[in-house]
Amino acid sequence: MAQPSRQYGPVDRSKDAAGDRSKTPETGTDFLQLDPACAPRGSLTDWLAGHLRAAVADGRLPGGSRLPATRLLADELGVSRGVVTDAYRRLAEEGRVVGRGRGGTVVVAGPAGPAGPVGPVGPARRPPATVRTAPAQGPGLFGEEPDSELFDRLRAAPARIDLTPGAPDLAAFPRAAWLRAERVVLDTLAASGLGYGDFRGTPQLRAAVATWLARNRGIRADPEDVLIVAGAAQALALLGRALRRIGITEVAVEDPGSLGFRRHLGHWLAATPPVPVDAEGVRVDALRALGARAVLLTPAHQYPTGVVLGGERRRELLQWAADGGLVLEDDYDAEHRYDRPPVPALHAALPDRVCYMGTVSKLLAPALRTGWLLVPPRLREDVLEAKRFADLGNPALPQLVLARLMDSGDLERHLRLLRRSHRRRRDAMITAIRTHLPTATVHGAAAGLHLMLTLPGGTGRTDAELAAAALERGVKVQPLSWHARLPGPPGLVLGYAAVPPGEIAEGVAVLGELVRGGG
Amino acid sequence: MAQPSRQYGPVDRSKDAAGDRSKTPETGTDFLQLDPACAPRGSLTDWLAGHLRAAVADGRLPGGSRLPATRLLADELGVSRGVVTDAYRRLAEEGRVVGRGRGGTVVVAGPAGPAGPVGPVGPARRPPATVRTAPAQGPGLFGEEPDSELFDRLRAAPARIDLTPGAPDLAAFPRAAWLRAERVVLDTLAASGLGYGDFRGTPQLRAAVATWLARNRGIRADPEDVLIVAGAAQALALLGRALRRIGITEVAVEDPGSLGFRRHLGHWLAATPPVPVDAEGVRVDALRALGARAVLLTPAHQYPTGVVLGGERRRELLQWAADGGLVLEDDYDAEHRYDRPPVPALHAALPDRVCYMGTVSKLLAPALRTGWLLVPPRLREDVLEAKRFADLGNPALPQLVLARLMDSGDLERHLRLLRRSHRRRRDAMITAIRTHLPTATVHGAAAGLHLMLTLPGGTGRTDAELAAAALERGVKVQPLSWHARLPGPPGLVLGYAAVPPGEIAEGVAVLGELVRGGG
Repeated sequence: MAQPSRQYGPVDRSKDAAGDRSKTPETGTDFLQLDPACAPRGSLTDWLAGHLRAAVADGRLPGGSRLPATRLLADELGVSRGVVTDAYRRLAEEGRVVGRGRGGTVVVAGPAGPAGPVGPVGPARRPPATVRTAPAQGPGLFGEEPDSELFDRLRAAPARIDLTPGAPDLAAFPRAAWLRAERVVLDTLAASGLGYGDFRGTPQLRAAVATWLARNRGIRADPEDVLIVAGAAQALALLGRALRRIGITEVAVEDPGSLGFRRHLGHWLAATPPVPVDAEGVRVDALRALGARAVLLTPAHQYPTGVVLGGERRRELLQWAADGGLVLEDDYDAEHRYDRPPVPALHAALPDRVCYMGTVSKLLAPALRTGWLLVPPRLREDVLEAKRFADLGNPALPQLVLARLMDSGDLERHLRLLRRSHRRRRDAMITAIRTHLPTATVHGAAAGLHLMLTLPGGTGRTDAELAAAALERGVKVQPLSWHARLPGPPGLVLGYAAVPPGEIAEGVAVLGELVRGGG
Repeated sequence: MAQPSRQYGPVDRSKDAAGDRSKTPETGTDFLQLDPACAPRGSLTDWLAGHLRAAVADGRLPGGSRLPATRLLADELGVSRGVVTDAYRRLAEEGRVVGRGRGGTVVVAGPAGPAGPVGPVGPARRPPATVRTAPAQGPGLFGEEPDSELFDRLRAAPARIDLTPGAPDLAAFPRAAWLRAERVVLDTLAASGLGYGDFRGTPQLRAAVATWLARNRGIRADPEDVLIVAGAAQALALLGRALRRIGITEVAVEDPGSLGFRRHLGHWLAATPPVPVDAEGVRVDALRALGARAVLLTPAHQYPTGVVLGGERRRELLQWAADGGLVLEDDYDAEHRYDRPPVPALHAALPDRVCYMGTVSKLLAPALRTGWLLVPPRLREDVLEAKRFADLGNPALPQLVLARLMDSGDLERHLRLLRRSHRRRRDAMITAIRTHLPTATVHGAAAGLHLMLTLPGGTGRTDAELAAAALERGVKVQPLSWHARLPGPPGLVLGYAAVPPGEIAEGVAVLGELVRGGG
């Protein structure tokens, strides 16, 4: 055995005092890190009142925060309760705190300086450095080259009617079913289930996702092959890192295609060259001509055009993949179909050449930040390592709740309910477009949560200018040009799933006025 | 406006049919992606039964899974209910499914091949490629160079008594308070709160954490400066990436120091050189001699030695930081104190040179994967960008529940309860050590969730061999040598917080027998 070559310090006193440890009083309190050993005896009340006063003054105890119960603080400090009540009384007399009976003693005087917008705040408040509040003027937002803060700022921009795409009907979120499932999870979970778990996901959710994919997406996956991730955003991050490890630094993307995803992938890789999309989906000839080794696709419902990858194009693409290409399949909203047949996932046809990403963002809510990823064997080790070192795995409780919703059939029921709600909203939007924008062309409305409009030329504005003018009128939309780098017609991407039919009609009417030259 | 240069496909049929959209039948079903348009009319039952049979045979419908209700499937397919009931009956006659009354129709025949260990499985089952099941023999586990899978395998190894460090008393997790808070959150959350939120964290949790840090850790932070992250693991990942952006590729680490954290940081950076720890904490002279620009520290309760950074050493360290050094402060278990005064966080003294990481892993449960990160202004943009592109933010619901637990005082109450439980367990361990390992030296037991033992030389085994022998006897511990690269005494790192006192005594007795040469 190696000889001790250094000391880590004296033997712990605890060892000798272990016998009557349970009687040892607390040594000081975490509350303001008060240690009575530092207090001059005889003036304990002065000492405590002074510390409290300083903490109120410098914002460590902001207005509205509660002081500890007197008995509790006295115990922790090892002082008599009178010391604490006297100190509290003194601050009350000074107007710094107020007694509220059973509500405790509450700080009323905040530190000097401007009050913050949310909750109790410290004194060091300053404007946030990165996420600027959106300039209310639309042109400022839409006129510039879209950057990574664009979505934040568009989201923050005030608007009466929000037709930006991306969310399902959030008012329909199954709150009661979620809480019911959470209760069962908390009632039955072993304590060890609250420890560090499998970073690949809980066995329950991986099995439930495998079953879901087999039933609904034609994918036969072993639960061992399902990786639970923090939404499609993390799936892209993990893939980006794994691809770099095998020497792939460029991933082609559809054009038009999701600006958000392109930015995301572009953060992790050197380049995301565009491949054009036409009426049959991605142009595989252009993909071949580009010489890209990998491509990010939305085959079931191309974003934002809504095109379904055609049969012949699908065969071409599978041949490209069989020849060595790698497909990243983003199956973001395939479950939402209205009047077209189901399309099995590409992954089902060629699992060794297709990475598959799914998410509950469009099934339940983006705020759950939960998705799944299947990858071919050659990427498996690198993707798993990337997930391990990203965060040691998703939180366990939401995974277990989601697994129950899937296993119980609650999620399928919710999806049926969503479809009815979304179909009504989709129809309301199409009717409104026919009325107010008769010259526009609707694309991709047979499925999904949004549709795309292309606009006739000659209105005298770019689509970004149109979106900016709409925002000034209180209607938030995304210009198609944000999602395209290749030349193409102007247009708008309009989400309908999260908006009540009346607001949809009103919003589209505003767009109509603007296109006709009013507003 | 740009002229259209290409088409995205024909005008959507939906536009013309919008008027009576609500009466349009579903087109096929997601269930097995069945599209009746592909069925030969007149033999619909044959067609459906054939598809079901194939899905049972290839595992898309594993044993135990439920078929859709006949009425529902008939509606979705646009066929008469008799077609579906006939097809189900045929499969029942073949012994592939069984009717269970209100329980529905359930698959009984699975695919050929071995049954999987968890839930319903697909046919492609194969052994997991990366996370090997642990060899039950301890030596296989402890004998090798510790790698990134080590913790997984140690966790998976069967043991009667688990004294590995890292978790609080998980049986005490406040399940009722959590569920109560979740109910309030779900009752009051606006639908928009379920959409894409602020990737930096919900305003509620950021404010609650700022208040918590001010009260308990002496840190005055603006809520705007608090970044909510997926545990300390993600905090390290974000810092690693941000440091690279400013040209720092090496971060020194304490030695001994957490193996897991060293591995984690080492994944993101080029090197993690060791700096020795002595009885006063990290050796700042050695840190200066190393020339490192950044160091990862656990000042409040050094891991695993339990040393508190001494006053003089603290001043030296702050001087080093003021001279240009950067400290990553891992405040992992500072809230758990038994018989020593509170120590304010280093960040409170020099916020511009200290990155601060905290987590609920030791306050509530590691499975929550929730923590917070404060960084100096010069790292702020890069860390925020890293979080955005990592996952677009933590899930919202657990953040809101945690904020309520903090604001309501439930978390402080839970911490007081934990302290009593942990103190009893700590005392049980010290008593058992005095009885069974009288020659061992206890370190760092005045705080935290674990203690460290150093062992006298001459037992004829390395500490890894001792840990291996203990695992063979059903007791899981970590050898100190795992956490050290510099030479030092042999020892063990023993967690007590998650283990009932009786098991602690039994486990330490086994260690005693092994050290005395038995077993």
